[in-house]
Amino acid sequence: MSDDHKAKMQERQATQRAKVAELQDPEKGLVLVHTGAGKGKSSSAFGVIVRALGWKQKVGVVQFIKGKWKTGERQFFDRLGEVTWHTMGEGFTWDTQDKDRDIAAAQAAFAKGREMMESGDYDLIVMDEINIAMRYEYISVEDVIAGLDARDKRTGVILTGRDAKPALCEYADLVTEMTEVKHPFKSGIKAQRGVDF
Amino acid sequence: MSDDHKAKMQERQATQRAKVAELQDPEKGLVLVHTGAGKGKSSSAFGVIVRALGWKQKVGVVQFIKGKWKTGERQFFDRLGEVTWHTMGEGFTWDTQDKDRDIAAAQAAFAKGREMMESGDYDLIVMDEINIAMRYEYISVEDVIAGLDARDKRTGVILTGRDAKPALCEYADLVTEMTEVKHPFKSGIKAQRGVDF
Repeated sequence: MSDDHKAKMQERQATQRAKVAELQDPEKGLVLVHTGAGKGKSSSAFGVIVRALGWKQKVGVVQFIKGKWKTGERQFFDRLGEVTWHTMGEGFTWDTQDKDRDIAAAQAAFAKGREMMESGDYDLIVMDEINIAMRYEYISVEDVIAGLDARDKRTGVILTGRDAKPALCEYADLVTEMTEVKHPFKSGIKAQRGVDF
Repeated sequence: MSDDHKAKMQERQATQRAKVAELQDPEKGLVLVHTGAGKGKSSSAFGVIVRALGWKQKVGVVQFIKGKWKTGERQFFDRLGEVTWHTMGEGFTWDTQDKDRDIAAAQAAFAKGREMMESGDYDLIVMDEINIAMRYEYISVEDVIAGLDARDKRTGVILTGRDAKPALCEYADLVTEMTEVKHPFKSGIKAQRGVDF
């Protein structure tokens, strides 16, 4: 083995060890991506919020899609009053009738998320359905990664939504894919209060 | 096509239509299984609890593993005081030093779950990590299916834990598999408060 190769291997090993040590730091907030076509991407993020609140951690949420909808999670956390909650502007359409307004709303929502990530005030921030906003290119994956990188490192972030960008998955500490196992009657099941929203 | 075959096909179609109609009934509680080796099986069940509480539904939980542990979810829901919460007996070991006691504890926990399912008092019941209890054959999948079948039909049930039995998945209305997308540093990450428990 050449000295050159040996030096390169040692350097790589040192980098890997540093990365592992960083991840083992219990104070470091992880970047988690929940993606896939199955159920559970958002609901497991809400479940993690419950755990974090159980440990008296500070939690913030930015929702990128469900601005107008009345959802169970929003009603619950509104009533609880312990989570900082932002939804994209009421004017958000997602029907591309006014794409410029949608882009502005998505970018404003992410600016809010970025401010929260940099503040150092939060143990956990959930950016719900942000992957959809990236998929439609209303916000760029580069901006999202730059925002994650500039965050206070104790802040954990969960990014949900199907079709997560590969570059984001590459950057994340953990990526979980939710898959619907095929079921003959799946298509017959309507969305239900409680289970689905 | 023979008349015999035609009659059989018509019967099958009628059965399928009845099943679809039943699933479309918004009052019918679904049986959901969360399985797979990835994160999010229990946390998405807790997220669904949050949604259900947001809609003022009644929720019960039976936890089959984490009896002794201090978890974020339990601290949160204890403090909230809105969820009926049962954990398996404190004596539960899972280390097979006293297998008979473990079996008795698992069966007592399921008896509680069964009573709750039959009572008609709940919109949603979560049987957390029950799949593990079936995997170790501390309770039988036949008993669990019989219990689900005897439930008040408006009660939805979520059964979590890896290695869900095929017969249970067959019985369930929906099965979601959580898969950890491979990540080079995954093994370096320790379980964290808030995210993992």
